[in-house]
Amino acid sequence: MKPLYIIKIGGNIVDDELKLSSFLQEFSAIRENKILVHGGGKLANKLAEKLGIEQKMIDGRRITDSETLKVVTMVYAGLINKNIVAQLQANGCSAIGLSGADANTILAHKRINAAHDYGFVGDIDSINSEFLNQLLENKMIIVFAPITHDKKGQLLNTNADTIAQEIAKAMSGFYHTNLIYSFEKAGVLTDVDDESSRIEEINPSYYTQLKEEKKIFAGMIPKLDNAFAALNNGVKKVIIGKAEDLTGLISGTAGTSIVNE
Amino acid sequence: MKPLYIIKIGGNIVDDELKLSSFLQEFSAIRENKILVHGGGKLANKLAEKLGIEQKMIDGRRITDSETLKVVTMVYAGLINKNIVAQLQANGCSAIGLSGADANTILAHKRINAAHDYGFVGDIDSINSEFLNQLLENKMIIVFAPITHDKKGQLLNTNADTIAQEIAKAMSGFYHTNLIYSFEKAGVLTDVDDESSRIEEINPSYYTQLKEEKKIFAGMIPKLDNAFAALNNGVKKVIIGKAEDLTGLISGTAGTSIVNE
Repeated sequence: MKPLYIIKIGGNIVDDELKLSSFLQEFSAIRENKILVHGGGKLANKLAEKLGIEQKMIDGRRITDSETLKVVTMVYAGLINKNIVAQLQANGCSAIGLSGADANTILAHKRINAAHDYGFVGDIDSINSEFLNQLLENKMIIVFAPITHDKKGQLLNTNADTIAQEIAKAMSGFYHTNLIYSFEKAGVLTDVDDESSRIEEINPSYYTQLKEEKKIFAGMIPKLDNAFAALNNGVKKVIIGKAEDLTGLISGTAGTSIVNE
Repeated sequence: MKPLYIIKIGGNIVDDELKLSSFLQEFSAIRENKILVHGGGKLANKLAEKLGIEQKMIDGRRITDSETLKVVTMVYAGLINKNIVAQLQANGCSAIGLSGADANTILAHKRINAAHDYGFVGDIDSINSEFLNQLLENKMIIVFAPITHDKKGQLLNTNADTIAQEIAKAMSGFYHTNLIYSFEKAGVLTDVDDESSRIEEINPSYYTQLKEEKKIFAGMIPKLDNAFAALNNGVKKVIIGKAEDLTGLISGTAGTSIVNE
């Protein structure tokens, strides 16, 4: 099977025009099939603030009320997604931007939670992997905004990390999928304050050992659990590291690779 | 050749939730291939006003400065486009929303005007008819937001009527194209205040006669000139009328048909 890279970029790249432009140059140079999933950054918060829409939080999670949903739909699926696509086109990439509603690519349902109502937040049910495969076969580069829908006419706000993971899992039937999560650190570190303490590779037995020795920062554990869950669902490799060195993340000279063996 | 309907809806439909929902029901029921092009309505103006972005006009035309471009990209390509797609999906339509940057579907250049700078307004150079045809062959229903790009990384604001016309012309190589412009009136009227004075069909000789007899409202003349230009470039029929009776516009019981013979 041919390789496919699913790359998630977060707010620290999306919010910084120069970093984004430089990232998109490196992204454009990847010769293999690729899908980009972008988060939202601070732009949506800024717009909500300007419009006087109060951001309600429960346990550190934002509640997506109907006004906030409009804001994230405008910022994520409109402003950010179309600007990324236009830049990729300028780099000679045949890019197409999608929300999960487009071609029913990501079907979700409104989160059901007995304790709290998170509003218009979507948990993913399925990925239209057949259509995504057709686009990839057609040499298209797909750019996803973190907006999904429920096929009942409702748009939903969905976590970009989860979208990247579900797409990677769904595309594993067609491709040798590599899932790249970019974040602020150089990778998984044994000393959170020392970038040189990056671990190059983690497999399940080493992961158990690292946890037993308490060498892994607690905040990384959910990310790593998710990474192993992806590997158990067909994804070949998960790479965590800085988007600023995308080429290194792909070649294996940067970031932490999470593998099953 | 198979028929293809390219249907443009304006602000009066987009701004009215009930009218839009009813229109999308009728649109979904069309069994032939179809492309929807939507305008922006008053939502973009309202958002610009809330954000304190001053709307500059020259001769009744809006200047798209960089802040206004962000607003129209958010509202047209984000909010309106994705909500229409989600509603069509709920109606069982396999809809996909695009801006002109997506898959380079509409390539444009920034308008050059010696007298005035209209800002980030795009005049169309070409349509990626091959990709649109692939989507249609794949049973997709395409929904265009009136945003294009210059393939140099710049998004541009482009008139939705012009987008509909250029798409209709470009798709005439693959399909028997019918271009439907919806507006506030029942069609071309000989008495602008009397909806019953609708003309059912206009061909070039009748158009000449109507103009000579001054039976056509001056505001309609550029629209009709554009319609005949489309017919001279491969489009089979142009229909002008109310979006509220889309089924009638298609069956020929409503609106005015503009034909070449």
